[in-house]
Amino acid sequence: MTERKLRLGVAGLGRAFSLMLPTLVQDARIEIVAGADPRPEARDRFTQDFAGRAYERVADMCADPAIEAVYVSTPHQFHRENVEAAAAAAKHILCEKPMALSVDDCRSMIETARRARVALVVGHSHSFDAPVRRAREIVESGAVGDLRMMSALNYTDFIYRPRRPEELDTAQGGGVIFNQAPHQVDTLRFIGGGMVKSVRAATGVLDRARRTEGAYTAFLTFENGVGASLTYSGYAHFDSDELVDWINEGGLPKNPDNYGAARRALSQANEADELALKAASNYGGPRYGSDPRVSAKPAQRWHQNFGLLIASCEHADLRPTSKGVLIYGDQERRLEPVPVPPVPRMEVIDELYAAVTEGRAPVHDGAWGLATMEVCFAILQSAREGREIALSHQVPVPPLGTVEG
Amino acid sequence: MTERKLRLGVAGLGRAFSLMLPTLVQDARIEIVAGADPRPEARDRFTQDFAGRAYERVADMCADPAIEAVYVSTPHQFHRENVEAAAAAAKHILCEKPMALSVDDCRSMIETARRARVALVVGHSHSFDAPVRRAREIVESGAVGDLRMMSALNYTDFIYRPRRPEELDTAQGGGVIFNQAPHQVDTLRFIGGGMVKSVRAATGVLDRARRTEGAYTAFLTFENGVGASLTYSGYAHFDSDELVDWINEGGLPKNPDNYGAARRALSQANEADELALKAASNYGGPRYGSDPRVSAKPAQRWHQNFGLLIASCEHADLRPTSKGVLIYGDQERRLEPVPVPPVPRMEVIDELYAAVTEGRAPVHDGAWGLATMEVCFAILQSAREGREIALSHQVPVPPLGTVEG
Repeated sequence: MTERKLRLGVAGLGRAFSLMLPTLVQDARIEIVAGADPRPEARDRFTQDFAGRAYERVADMCADPAIEAVYVSTPHQFHRENVEAAAAAAKHILCEKPMALSVDDCRSMIETARRARVALVVGHSHSFDAPVRRAREIVESGAVGDLRMMSALNYTDFIYRPRRPEELDTAQGGGVIFNQAPHQVDTLRFIGGGMVKSVRAATGVLDRARRTEGAYTAFLTFENGVGASLTYSGYAHFDSDELVDWINEGGLPKNPDNYGAARRALSQANEADELALKAASNYGGPRYGSDPRVSAKPAQRWHQNFGLLIASCEHADLRPTSKGVLIYGDQERRLEPVPVPPVPRMEVIDELYAAVTEGRAPVHDGAWGLATMEVCFAILQSAREGREIALSHQVPVPPLGTVEG
Repeated sequence: MTERKLRLGVAGLGRAFSLMLPTLVQDARIEIVAGADPRPEARDRFTQDFAGRAYERVADMCADPAIEAVYVSTPHQFHRENVEAAAAAAKHILCEKPMALSVDDCRSMIETARRARVALVVGHSHSFDAPVRRAREIVESGAVGDLRMMSALNYTDFIYRPRRPEELDTAQGGGVIFNQAPHQVDTLRFIGGGMVKSVRAATGVLDRARRTEGAYTAFLTFENGVGASLTYSGYAHFDSDELVDWINEGGLPKNPDNYGAARRALSQANEADELALKAASNYGGPRYGSDPRVSAKPAQRWHQNFGLLIASCEHADLRPTSKGVLIYGDQERRLEPVPVPPVPRMEVIDELYAAVTEGRAPVHDGAWGLATMEVCFAILQSAREGREIALSHQVPVPPLGTVEG
């Protein structure tokens, strides 16, 4: 049986692309046929790695009749322009998170895709992770009663990964509210039903040399009465992988003894060095090498994940983890194993592929992406104005259909 | 050297007294000389265990010239009356948390103690735990920069411990907001400097058979700009001791395999049984036995604690634990061990004793206790009214004096 392949053009060959590359090359439903990036070394590498054309400009790639869908993985501030270029060329779209930098941008993208009658999927985010989906299915089934409360936290080294200056400028989409909150918010919205009612939050810039928000703590209420707290810090101090068996975000084992590595590497670099460091390890750069995530699968791999999350229902606490869903029920505590997809992040391609080939509406569509970004914008606004923010662009999670456990 | 003993009368020989008993009998600075309880079996046991008089009524005990201080460990709704009776008799006071059930009650207690010129200490709470104090000292010292964010969570079986009906009635001081939030709030206020500015919260009644709040999640802002999230659930599902090396609140090892024990025991009891169960295991009851916490110290004991707490400063995350303070710094991660007091909760007697014998103002005085309860009341109010509550009775933590690490 030969599966129909989706012919994909990649807009932006940077870090998001690197992280998605294992998915794109291992999933048999995808064929990479074109790429676009302003960096000549990325284009050179691309034409070596793939039997596809490399473009300097996204708009030119979108005009390529060989592609039927565009993966928008450019820097955030270009998402709207690139999505609209793809839609104008009648290409389906997978747009990286954060969807865009304002509600207006998100709305324009949704409207443009709608008029062009192309699919718009927003992802990857960790709400695609199969254990998160399974947790939502359990909530939806009512098997453990109503969901009432959620709590989530994640502590990482995000702020000390090498950055371009714009990535440390909130106005240009820098900082953890644009880059990490979408994962946590998307996941809480997914499990909680989607309809956030209000946001109260505080944000923190804890390193004066990197002047963008690196931490936040926020309180959400949902229309269905659920209350949720979420906390994130990217300052490379406490590492919450300590709480989840030292399995990292990518579902791979982490070495607990490598404390402070990101900060240490960066502290030896000045600003020019940091740019060079980032460029070198970027796709096409001299330190990129052959990505092991592409060339070989590790012996053991677990689900991707995003820190600690506990969803409290009347008859159980649910905790999606890298191994499945931990169900702390009235009588017993058990791990409901969830099969690890053969290809990481395959769940994203499932939605994109079904949308393009069967016309099935994606869960993570433009309206979903906008709703998640509205929460993120509200985190910034609540912290800035010191007050609770009411939301108005939320959408519910569609019924997923319950799988018996 | 013979230390002057503080002659103590105990008002209420129930569960709070049981938990404080190891402290009271092991700390050489305390002599228990009287007790009061309406239950004859408790008074009988008391006169067997101690060379002191047992009273039916607290007011009568307060008139006993043998006592110079009263430990108020009666049910919450009697705290005000008992504290004021003690003050009227010119006795110093240690009052259990929650201090009282309203701001007015707290203010009246403070004023009565002030006029009577007696010390009023509010505790025990887990903010007395030495690692929490050490974390505050580190913050105060400025050694790791400004504190900016805190996150705390605790998941227990509180709701399924045997209860009297009033303990499941919020109006009479039942539920986790009155019984458990004071620990978490006190601890966050202590580390964060004390001055909470606003509270936004959601509460949950997840078991319709036990109609008091068993869970909450809350967002605090502090006057100094710190933002904090705190989450608690007492529904015996997820147990956050799993995140802290399976060491329980009392600093003792917990058996992870005993899942659901509290709920199981209770599910076999009807309401009358539950009362009997509580009475039986209460002080003086047939199942009370000789408390091992009194009769023998376990071979190894760690600090008392209250779940997970991470305090994020500019140059370190601080995490008070049962072993000391984990300091996740810029360069290294280390445990700063904090000596375990020879007597559990001895920190409470330190404050009471210094207040009585040296006239030293306690940190956990009436104003402090009121400020903590104001936050707890605001959790209830915010959840009820769906809005952020501004506070007006907060007091700062006094300087502790920094000990070099």
